[in-house]
Amino acid sequence: MYTEPTSHPIDARTGDMGAATGRYEKRLVDLAGIYLDEAAFAAAVEAGGDRVVYAVNEMRPGTAPGDLTFGTTFMEPGRIGDEFYMTRGHIHAKANRPEVYYGESGAGLMLMESPEGEVRILALEPRSAVYVPPMWIHRSVNVGAAPLVMSFFYPSDSGQDYDIIARSGGMATRIIADGAGWKAVPNPTYRPRTAEEIAQVHATTD
Amino acid sequence: MYTEPTSHPIDARTGDMGAATGRYEKRLVDLAGIYLDEAAFAAAVEAGGDRVVYAVNEMRPGTAPGDLTFGTTFMEPGRIGDEFYMTRGHIHAKANRPEVYYGESGAGLMLMESPEGEVRILALEPRSAVYVPPMWIHRSVNVGAAPLVMSFFYPSDSGQDYDIIARSGGMATRIIADGAGWKAVPNPTYRPRTAEEIAQVHATTD
Repeated sequence: MYTEPTSHPIDARTGDMGAATGRYEKRLVDLAGIYLDEAAFAAAVEAGGDRVVYAVNEMRPGTAPGDLTFGTTFMEPGRIGDEFYMTRGHIHAKANRPEVYYGESGAGLMLMESPEGEVRILALEPRSAVYVPPMWIHRSVNVGAAPLVMSFFYPSDSGQDYDIIARSGGMATRIIADGAGWKAVPNPTYRPRTAEEIAQVHATTD
Repeated sequence: MYTEPTSHPIDARTGDMGAATGRYEKRLVDLAGIYLDEAAFAAAVEAGGDRVVYAVNEMRPGTAPGDLTFGTTFMEPGRIGDEFYMTRGHIHAKANRPEVYYGESGAGLMLMESPEGEVRILALEPRSAVYVPPMWIHRSVNVGAAPLVMSFFYPSDSGQDYDIIARSGGMATRIIADGAGWKAVPNPTYRPRTAEEIAQVHATTD
């Protein structure tokens, strides 16, 4: 009659999660178009496009409004040209749904962008929660030398719009290597959203 | 225009959380009535009723449907008579809202009960998430010798009904010491909910 309570041990190094209901992997070949340096991307694919860049384990009880989905993301360290490995990124299909990320291991960034193109960057570090409020496009970036592992929590009825970033030619900001560290630079292929596109995002809220 | 993204470092030993929007503490005197052994409780209050048994730090962005609240709970180790320290416990005021707990440090249990009195017990251990599905009354219990610290995540519109447990004379099961460990025993003061009380819980869902 009621859903059974469940336990989900998480491995902070690998992102493995017990009793996950789903898992997906993103291989380098799946990520065509997200990096600026197309020649470096083609060369990396040639050298081994099947390698997994990141993997997601999730516990999705269902999609009922008011329920919660959670899981882990594991991302290898690496770069395409100067640009650090990153997730494809998304805004929630119901754009007023938030997400909480919680650092497990490694050193990353949460790169966020409002529909109007405002940018925010917060560190993803072990034992630190990052609150991504409603309406922010978000993507994580591994700026460290080790895998980045984080857990995440979001409302089960959020949905994901993964194309919003591609439609604007990427996010407004790219995260590239700067010596042993990183820096944020403007993305030359970025096209700011039109008023109509922004209105379409707002129209998804309830 | 949009809510600002925020970072919340969590101390796994103390439960301290950066940029919390609220905190409350439960002192022993605040917990009258939850333990079976009233004489032992009175003696413990006499010896120091002001001591904090547990404290909650929370980040509550608001109460908008679809938003998320998260935070930490820190609970001292200890017992009243044979019964381990525990939180007051609750069901969500919207009973079909779930909660995810995530162990930070210490050894605890999540004690859960359906409106009809079915009981489930899951371990709260470091790096293990416990999914408390919709409709389960829940309370955490510190069965270890060290503080129990956990983080939690729930829909911001959940609300809490803290009286549901008192109305039934406690939960159906009590967690008591058993040598160096613990065991679950029937609660002699428990009164199963009537069909009407169960229907009232179901009436809170949306």
